[in-house]
Amino acid sequence: MRYPEHADPVITLTAGPVNAYPEVLRGLGRTVLYDYDPAFQLFYEKVVDKAQKAMRLSNKPVILHGEPVLGLEAAAASLISPDDVVLNLASGVYGKGFGYWAKRYSPHLLEIEVPYNEAIDPQAVADMLKAHPEITVVSVCHHDTPSGTINPIDAIGALVSAHGAYLIVDAVSSFGGMKTHPEDCKADIYVTGPNKCLGAPPGLTMMGVSERAWAKMKANPLAPRASMLSIVDWENAWSRDKPFPFTPSVSEINGLDVALDLYLNEGPEAVWARHALTAKAMRAGVTAMGLSVWAASDSIASPTTTAVRTPDGVDEKALRQAARARYGVVFSSGRGETLGKLTRIGHMGPTAQPIYAIAALTALGGAMNAAGRKLAIGKGIEAALAVIDADA
Amino acid sequence: MRYPEHADPVITLTAGPVNAYPEVLRGLGRTVLYDYDPAFQLFYEKVVDKAQKAMRLSNKPVILHGEPVLGLEAAAASLISPDDVVLNLASGVYGKGFGYWAKRYSPHLLEIEVPYNEAIDPQAVADMLKAHPEITVVSVCHHDTPSGTINPIDAIGALVSAHGAYLIVDAVSSFGGMKTHPEDCKADIYVTGPNKCLGAPPGLTMMGVSERAWAKMKANPLAPRASMLSIVDWENAWSRDKPFPFTPSVSEINGLDVALDLYLNEGPEAVWARHALTAKAMRAGVTAMGLSVWAASDSIASPTTTAVRTPDGVDEKALRQAARARYGVVFSSGRGETLGKLTRIGHMGPTAQPIYAIAALTALGGAMNAAGRKLAIGKGIEAALAVIDADA
Amino acid sequence: MRYPEHADPVITLTAGPVNAYPEVLRGLGRTVLYDYDPAFQLFYEKVVDKAQKAMRLSNKPVILHGEPVLGLEAAAASLISPDDVVLNLASGVYGKGFGYWAKRYSPHLLEIEVPYNEAIDPQAVADMLKAHPEITVVSVCHHDTPSGTINPIDAIGALVSAHGAYLIVDAVSSFGGMKTHPEDCKADIYVTGPNKCLGAPPGLTMMGVSERAWAKMKANPLAPRASMLSIVDWENAWSRDKPFPFTPSVSEINGLDVALDLYLNEGPEAVWARHALTAKAMRAGVTAMGLSVWAASDSIASPTTTAVRTPDGVDEKALRQAARARYGVVFSSGRGETLGKLTRIGHMGPTAQPIYAIAALTALGGAMNAAGRKLAIGKGIEAALAVIDADA
Amino acid sequence: MRYPEHADPVITLTAGPVNAYPEVLRGLGRTVLYDYDPAFQLFYEKVVDKAQKAMRLSNKPVILHGEPVLGLEAAAASLISPDDVVLNLASGVYGKGFGYWAKRYSPHLLEIEVPYNEAIDPQAVADMLKAHPEITVVSVCHHDTPSGTINPIDAIGALVSAHGAYLIVDAVSSFGGMKTHPEDCKADIYVTGPNKCLGAPPGLTMMGVSERAWAKMKANPLAPRASMLSIVDWENAWSRDKPFPFTPSVSEINGLDVALDLYLNEGPEAVWARHALTAKAMRAGVTAMGLSVWAASDSIASPTTTAVRTPDGVDEKALRQAARARYGVVFSSGRGETLGKLTRIGHMGPTAQPIYAIAALTALGGAMNAAGRKLAIGKGIEAALAVIDADA
Repeated sequence: MRYPEHADPVITLTAGPVNAYPEVLRGLGRTVLYDYDPAFQLFYEKVVDKAQKAMRLSNKPVILHGEPVLGLEAAAASLISPDDVVLNLASGVYGKGFGYWAKRYSPHLLEIEVPYNEAIDPQAVADMLKAHPEITVVSVCHHDTPSGTINPIDAIGALVSAHGAYLIVDAVSSFGGMKTHPEDCKADIYVTGPNKCLGAPPGLTMMGVSERAWAKMKANPLAPRASMLSIVDWENAWSRDKPFPFTPSVSEINGLDVALDLYLNEGPEAVWARHALTAKAMRAGVTAMGLSVWAASDSIASPTTTAVRTPDGVDEKALRQAARARYGVVFSSGRGETLGKLTRIGHMGPTAQPIYAIAALTALGGAMNAAGRKLAIGKGIEAALAVIDADA
Repeated sequence: MRYPEHADPVITLTAGPVNAYPEVLRGLGRTVLYDYDPAFQLFYEKVVDKAQKAMRLSNKPVILHGEPVLGLEAAAASLISPDDVVLNLASGVYGKGFGYWAKRYSPHLLEIEVPYNEAIDPQAVADMLKAHPEITVVSVCHHDTPSGTINPIDAIGALVSAHGAYLIVDAVSSFGGMKTHPEDCKADIYVTGPNKCLGAPPGLTMMGVSERAWAKMKANPLAPRASMLSIVDWENAWSRDKPFPFTPSVSEINGLDVALDLYLNEGPEAVWARHALTAKAMRAGVTAMGLSVWAASDSIASPTTTAVRTPDGVDEKALRQAARARYGVVFSSGRGETLGKLTRIGHMGPTAQPIYAIAALTALGGAMNAAGRKLAIGKGIEAALAVIDADA
Repeated sequence: MRYPEHADPVITLTAGPVNAYPEVLRGLGRTVLYDYDPAFQLFYEKVVDKAQKAMRLSNKPVILHGEPVLGLEAAAASLISPDDVVLNLASGVYGKGFGYWAKRYSPHLLEIEVPYNEAIDPQAVADMLKAHPEITVVSVCHHDTPSGTINPIDAIGALVSAHGAYLIVDAVSSFGGMKTHPEDCKADIYVTGPNKCLGAPPGLTMMGVSERAWAKMKANPLAPRASMLSIVDWENAWSRDKPFPFTPSVSEINGLDVALDLYLNEGPEAVWARHALTAKAMRAGVTAMGLSVWAASDSIASPTTTAVRTPDGVDEKALRQAARARYGVVFSSGRGETLGKLTRIGHMGPTAQPIYAIAALTALGGAMNAAGRKLAIGKGIEAALAVIDADA
Repeated sequence: MRYPEHADPVITLTAGPVNAYPEVLRGLGRTVLYDYDPAFQLFYEKVVDKAQKAMRLSNKPVILHGEPVLGLEAAAASLISPDDVVLNLASGVYGKGFGYWAKRYSPHLLEIEVPYNEAIDPQAVADMLKAHPEITVVSVCHHDTPSGTINPIDAIGALVSAHGAYLIVDAVSSFGGMKTHPEDCKADIYVTGPNKCLGAPPGLTMMGVSERAWAKMKANPLAPRASMLSIVDWENAWSRDKPFPFTPSVSEINGLDVALDLYLNEGPEAVWARHALTAKAMRAGVTAMGLSVWAASDSIASPTTTAVRTPDGVDEKALRQAARARYGVVFSSGRGETLGKLTRIGHMGPTAQPIYAIAALTALGGAMNAAGRKLAIGKGIEAALAVIDADA
């Protein structure tokens, strides 16, 4: 049998969008209340409170009503002004991409760039900050999803903070799947969203904003206002007593509420543990099977996505098509620079379960078989299982 | 008994967000597919096809992934360039508001403004166009929701087209509830969304774009690109073979798909008819009860929202609170200029049912009673019923 | 416009099935767990605990996996043995009907029957029990739905208990909508279900069973066992440690769980109050409009259903068809003896809201109009509103 | 990590209840209509039509409103009268069990019983029928779920038909997962349900009834009437013009409607193929891993459930607990005679996907490891994968 392309696959193991938790999918169907209704305003405030708790913030996070590219663009537009000197840290496609937005708002852009299977070295950041005391804003992507690699943002954040610059962090695909919070890395703007490790649909941005970032944005005359790109318009929107700048995405908020409950009730540490274990089992299986993980070292491999290097001579697209057609399993390709060079298996939210690493290894191995690469699939499964069992 | 503010009301009869149809609420809970999955790409193309059919367009509409304020802002940002001369038609708060966006992208702004309970007279537009042959863009709000009044956009559009200017139409709260389509009014950009008369949640823009508007936007170097505000980035996103500029709001698309099916299956004419009948019954009841409709004449009163003038000496906010506390019925206030002067009862999507006009009249009348204004509620109900029965 | 018969109506105001609360409808979609899974077994026990709390029982209630006719038939089959002398109290179609089941299990049947718009007089029961000391089982229907009338079961129960007989109570359409609990009326078997005032779908029976009823059933060799009709098989099924006699209706349990939460969280007294107020407003409107309530006196009229007498010369079926076709409002007819003589408007669960009494009065009045009976609809609405406002 | 017992598992791979398809779970949440509403009556008729199409019947099937134990008990109670001579065919716990019901309605019971890992030999049936021309009813379980074995009912049915006896078939856990239909096996009563291979929740029976079975039941004065156990009461309930004997389980019908659409739209042959392939891969893996399938031969192993023999010295319950605790995977135990002797992995509806055979093999192998039995898990996976790939 072959799974037809027009029908839903069996298991989506991508780097996002991932399917939402069933509870969240049902939560989306709650009554759509009027945004000025006191019941909705109270509800919204409670959702923001839960987001604050999940993000371990000492102030209220902001919810923007578009998926996190909105949050990232809005952060650049609101925080960066023409006299800022921005240091952008690029260890992958997404980190690199933020530089383009930064450049739109200030001509002064410095960059540290490393090969896209490596991570930023905090020492390099320290050196750069020392060499360029004029740096006022630093931007970094925590989990550069197209590479499946993690940057040491807590260490970087400590340096940036000591330097006195503002820090913008893209934690879209790491938050909720590992230990990371805005204040852990001293971020001034920390952008994440519900659709990766929280297991809700795409459509919202969750943003941590430090008090000094609020002050800088409000003082910035060029920061968007009366605009979809505005952050400052939303400063008080969390309050049951304040109107919304425009109609919020009510159903997405309904879904986020459930996702936050799930996260807090399961316990963040438990959630991170199953992300970590799934990824660890995956990597063990990949290696034992005869493939290699894209990340230069295990220590920088993401717990929420495993990128597997495409062997020479294998057509990466055909590989993913075979996994879908034969087993109903969907993986992600690379993006931009990494396109064609790797296949990504997501471990996010509802798919961050070790048994899905087994399914992924089998589908990946089977697809390699179909591409003519005979792998030691059985060994791969046994290695992954050994990791899972060692943790039992 | 009194309905507590923290609990959901019984019936939301606002001018939006309105509750979604139950089928749409369930549709929101469909599996969240990966946006690169062929099943999702095919599905998205089909949804755009349905939107095209509903909008009676000869080319593909665009879906933007934020509620219609995004669409309106993006339209201004993309279509209007600094050398354009814009004529903005303002018969209410929303029409007036668009002028501010227009001004952001061109300094040349002309305006026709009428009292906010009246509609734009096409003759005034004709005169203005004649007096100002330099006008290149005209913008108009079809249903100025804060007033519950309708502008004659088909007549206006014919004049603008003859003049050769581009026409931007805000049809957010009229499309789907009455006969209006982009090509009926020769709109170059026609902005609407799923959350009003289509009975889906807020979170998306549906936009009709004429071929010459595409050409103008693509030729405009200042039109947003690689931005949440971009329209041009999405030109080919409808195609199953093209990637999305960024992750679409998958669940909102799932809901929109169902909403479009409902609209097309019930039959647009039938849908419009129940909006019209509900509003007509409402207006008859309002008048018979001893209140007055805000709109200066019946012919410009919206079929999708009835704005009722607040009698002198009545606290409009207290009125709505009484309707909610006593009967569990939620109405909208005015906005901006009309705030405090009127109460709005929406007839949109699932609430565009004549029996809800009865509920609205009763709750409104009862709330007036509570405010010390004794009205002829029984007469109001009988007048509304007579309208409904005359149509049976 | 006319609502077509093949499409869903706008508001269902029947005596059941009624639509479920939206929260319950979503709850039905929870994952279907394996009935031997420890998570399901624990969940089931918790649902039974909630049912116990709602029913204010001192022991565990039983859930049977069929709608309450199963519970009633099973009660007769399990509790009544051939040497029992049964006194059946019949004030309506359902009370009368139970006698046929009773007769199936014992030839000794006595009956008190009153006209179907009246209630059983406790004095008559006292007299009968005195005259027939051999009576061992008494059966009574609390709310005889086809009549919309309430029997004084607490008073009757006290007499039966003093006599020493077993009491079987059908409280299917009263429990959850007014103050009634198994132990209030000293019932030995008390049968209800989720689909009336609890606002869940039909498909389950909830049953209170006294300790002595358990003993009698277990001692009865003819009580069904290994059968759909068995009660005794389910005695310990509530326990997380005990298997189910057969597969329970998992999704219905998922729905019931939510319905019980809603009931307990809103507060039983508050729930009863809105049922009572809705019915009271309805009756006031019916009378003021020029119609009459079926129940012989206000004091026996049900708070969960209002039965309205059909005026002479009016075709009751055509009346309901007109209410549906013109206004999208669905009512219940009578049943058996009361068929054609009355129309029933349910006030149950999500429809027990005073504003729905207004909708019901309007639709009923309008349908009478269509049938040629001009009624004082406006007066009816005003009378109903006066009742609602008096309680605000 | 270990999955706690109180939380939902990751994947339920039991022999039923299985989780429902997501589309079905959403379908359960449709509006609960009044059972006398014309829209519901029409809908019900359409659902019965779909069931007829799925069951490939030439007359209308019956839906009973309880899970299939109701259907089986009702079949025995309605079809078997005291002068019938019943031949019960027992190749497992369920087949054996039907004999007890048969005995309740007729004292004349003959039985062919084979070891519970074997299937009934049609020749033995032929011999018995020849030896006992007085046999009037034959009963057989198609898929004896507690054994995971299939009886050759089409061959048996041909013999029974030639003999002139009535045939009762329990096809609860085979229908929808393999080629089997009431008329293929000339069944007079054929009992199945939505909760196994159709992927809907438990709570309904679907029953094919031959014309001569209708005649026999209606002529049987002891056949239940005015009872939950009645079949004859439901003869015409499918018709939009006929009332229901009692309130149907509206939400279960809502779910069944979707399940039948999914089955018919995917195509029955395609559905059967993925059940067969999943089971075949499972069996290949089980054997290659060093375990053995319970069924005496591959030809009688069920495509919808694989029963795996418990190795000597292994605690079967601990095995399943380990699979759940370590991997979040739930299996079924045996029942009655087979309890403790085997573990069952279901391949039904949404779980009949080959990739779940991989998950099952891994979880089963890992649990065996935990129990001290080192198995060749890698070989098992590779063998299963070879089966899947051979079919690609």
